[in-house]
Amino acid sequence: MSEGVTVVVPGHVTLFFSVHETDDPATTGSRGAGLNLTESVQVTVRRGSGQSINGTGGTIAAVEGVLDTLDVTAAVEIHTELPLGTGFGVSGAAALGTALGANRLFDCGHTRDDLVRLAHVAEVEAGTGLGDVVAQARGGVVMRLEPGAPPHARLDTIPESRPLELYSMGDLSTPAVLEGDTTAITRSGEDALDRLRRDPTLATAFAAGRTFASETGLLEPEVATVIEDVTAAGGSAAMGMLGRTVVALDHGLSRAGYAVTATAVADRGARFAEDA
Amino acid sequence: MSEGVTVVVPGHVTLFFSVHETDDPATTGSRGAGLNLTESVQVTVRRGSGQSINGTGGTIAAVEGVLDTLDVTAAVEIHTELPLGTGFGVSGAAALGTALGANRLFDCGHTRDDLVRLAHVAEVEAGTGLGDVVAQARGGVVMRLEPGAPPHARLDTIPESRPLELYSMGDLSTPAVLEGDTTAITRSGEDALDRLRRDPTLATAFAAGRTFASETGLLEPEVATVIEDVTAAGGSAAMGMLGRTVVALDHGLSRAGYAVTATAVADRGARFAEDA
Repeated sequence: MSEGVTVVVPGHVTLFFSVHETDDPATTGSRGAGLNLTESVQVTVRRGSGQSINGTGGTIAAVEGVLDTLDVTAAVEIHTELPLGTGFGVSGAAALGTALGANRLFDCGHTRDDLVRLAHVAEVEAGTGLGDVVAQARGGVVMRLEPGAPPHARLDTIPESRPLELYSMGDLSTPAVLEGDTTAITRSGEDALDRLRRDPTLATAFAAGRTFASETGLLEPEVATVIEDVTAAGGSAAMGMLGRTVVALDHGLSRAGYAVTATAVADRGARFAEDA
Repeated sequence: MSEGVTVVVPGHVTLFFSVHETDDPATTGSRGAGLNLTESVQVTVRRGSGQSINGTGGTIAAVEGVLDTLDVTAAVEIHTELPLGTGFGVSGAAALGTALGANRLFDCGHTRDDLVRLAHVAEVEAGTGLGDVVAQARGGVVMRLEPGAPPHARLDTIPESRPLELYSMGDLSTPAVLEGDTTAITRSGEDALDRLRRDPTLATAFAAGRTFASETGLLEPEVATVIEDVTAAGGSAAMGMLGRTVVALDHGLSRAGYAVTATAVADRGARFAEDA
């Protein structure tokens, strides 16, 4: 097998968001807040062709979009323990990892922000996400203050690191939600962001996420039950957007009796595996 | 000794720069390019008072500025193997590490960009630097495209990681150079940045740095000799601004016979030590 370039991209779970559509995918995107996770997506780009996900077939449209824009043909292997299609940003991670990896393998000569923009555009055009890529490039607990890709996007982070727990009950369809009327979502998401900017802490991010989930009607009944169980056990949890997914601060889910995936805030954004 | 918060901040060496002064230290700064180094500055903030540098006395003015702005009293211990006052960004690192560390220790509730701005302002007000802090917050090979602190600053990075070597022959006075007429420096620095943006690679960053050093007259004769020796041995080196310092790509200095400090591009910006 030919030598490859491997990029490690954190998983990312959104707590709340607002939708901002323009005629240009580079200025289209979301505002909101989310958490980068130490559970990651490893993307290896090699000379060759075809995609694989965890050793099996499968195609992520945004990955093809990135390769088309860079005008290269490559084999892209994606490995992750995160579940697919459940709001952990796997497609955004795959797009961003492909951009960084292919640029290095083929000496395309782009800057990092060029590559983030290109991956964001591919993700928006594929209809699979609006804000994961820019957040995953940055790392940490990300507030997306202005939508889109660099240089339009503006992000800031909350400098807190905490253990997290994940509990996933399956997928929701991102395209279906985003193709519906997003006016109410956007109003609620902007209120949540205002609240978080006044008190930029992880505790407030989770509280704002819970309010957003119930105000918008995105909260699934089975997710609501889990969040209530965590609250009853003295913890703090919120719904991961957009999946039947719960994320809890510290050990809130396991203390409420759930079998969880243990993770933590990943301070570091997308990076080359060799830059350990 | 009371428990402390330790922040690891990469050393940073500037290859070329332009000076942009305004009435506001948050919009005052430099454009240019520089390298974050795996040789780092470790800043520990504890309850208490007083500064120490490598276990001895010593005071970095920007550290005091940061503590004053945060309105806290703290003991700040700075440890580094980088030489002081020779253009490796130790004062910027100390200011940034103090801001991040004190914010966490005293629960000040600032965002990361708030803390970067506050450290940048303290560094500008102390007259000890114009662009290290924002670069050290970001990590990697940094192009500073717009001067100042967030949200005014704009940065991008070149996604290349390479071994580097350092050779230092002592200090130059940053305040003296920056207090002189910087018109010619700024013209040359902007030309260098335009050149690097057309071809954003490490090789071009070093070439642009060499041109800048000789055009501006900042190139010291003894530094010029070392750079010529590296070139003669087939390598690429440039002057670190502002010190009697040479930085070389890969093993250029040791191949030319110099006893060096081996380092590399640090992909990662300032981080908490516990976020390993």
